[in-house]
Amino acid sequence: MLLADIGNSYFHIYNGSDVEHLSYADAIRKYSKEALCYISVKQQLDSTIENISLWKNISQEIQLQGAYETMGVDRRALCLSHDDGVFVDAGSAITVDIMENGEYMGGFILPGLKSMLKAYSSISPVLDTELNDTISLERLPTTTKDGISYGIIASIKALIDKHSDGKKLYFTGGDGKILSSFFEEAIYDEMLVFNGMRKVIKETEIC
Amino acid sequence: MLLADIGNSYFHIYNGSDVEHLSYADAIRKYSKEALCYISVKQQLDSTIENISLWKNISQEIQLQGAYETMGVDRRALCLSHDDGVFVDAGSAITVDIMENGEYMGGFILPGLKSMLKAYSSISPVLDTELNDTISLERLPTTTKDGISYGIIASIKALIDKHSDGKKLYFTGGDGKILSSFFEEAIYDEMLVFNGMRKVIKETEIC
Repeated sequence: MLLADIGNSYFHIYNGSDVEHLSYADAIRKYSKEALCYISVKQQLDSTIENISLWKNISQEIQLQGAYETMGVDRRALCLSHDDGVFVDAGSAITVDIMENGEYMGGFILPGLKSMLKAYSSISPVLDTELNDTISLERLPTTTKDGISYGIIASIKALIDKHSDGKKLYFTGGDGKILSSFFEEAIYDEMLVFNGMRKVIKETEIC
Repeated sequence: MLLADIGNSYFHIYNGSDVEHLSYADAIRKYSKEALCYISVKQQLDSTIENISLWKNISQEIQLQGAYETMGVDRRALCLSHDDGVFVDAGSAITVDIMENGEYMGGFILPGLKSMLKAYSSISPVLDTELNDTISLERLPTTTKDGISYGIIASIKALIDKHSDGKKLYFTGGDGKILSSFFEEAIYDEMLVFNGMRKVIKETEIC
């Protein structure tokens, strides 16, 4: 059974052994003739995908105790992967969610790393730079490039650290590996959302 | 003597009693016939302003010990306003700079509040929202709007708190008042950059 997590920028597909990250068009081209269960936050794609008879939308089944109504289904699935922890999905946006004893405690949203860089460059050409993803957080930066990289990474880290409080830190998403490298004992796992989906599928036998 | 701080979005003018925030065109229209000393980070405006004979660019005179070469002149002037402290200029971008015993220690840059909101809305229409500028930072948010407002404010605050370490916190800029309301004992003062300029003018008698 193929599982798909349709995000704001990519189609993430677990084929039983690997996770593939495809464009919407490529994913439909490659897998529309195969049985697939998916969750999606990309509403603009709904009308296209609903016509694919072998694909089943299981978004409604991803129930999380304590979740709020408009919480993205990918965040719910991610939180279902473990009963306790801080769950960071670093994709187009960065979501940070807290779970305690199987219950959702709340969370917050930050722009993704690429969106942050775009925000700087739209303010002034002087702030148009790339991320220094090996920036030291031990000393204050003294260049514009490092001042921006530090601003992005250290602000995210300071807020996540404030909420970790002995909890395990789980990272997933396209920038999850980079971001997790700034934390000690962080777990990066691109299967987390799919593991949450599999838990629901096992319990409900919906797929 | 009029003083002007020309930023990435606005012309800030101190007329001896008040600070005015004008568009570039309005400022030139209103004050081009008066003597004025200015600093500017808006390079695109240089060729226009250099032709105004009564205006004097004193950017080169704003020297700050420990500053790096490409550091914006408005940040240098802001840091010159006091010998010690954390200096936050919350405008189009948010700059945070640390001073100790009259020496610049380093600093970092974050996108401004409006840029942050724009970054979210460009990721997904679901994330298009306004800032809740009275958001509680005491509890984890459980709605998208609050999750975004919390993400913006709490990440900035967590990083500034980490660096304040008993130092005085000074805020200026268009969003300085809002942002300072999330800190205890923060000082908001829209004169800080002008005070730095006045200190230099007094020492060098350039204006």
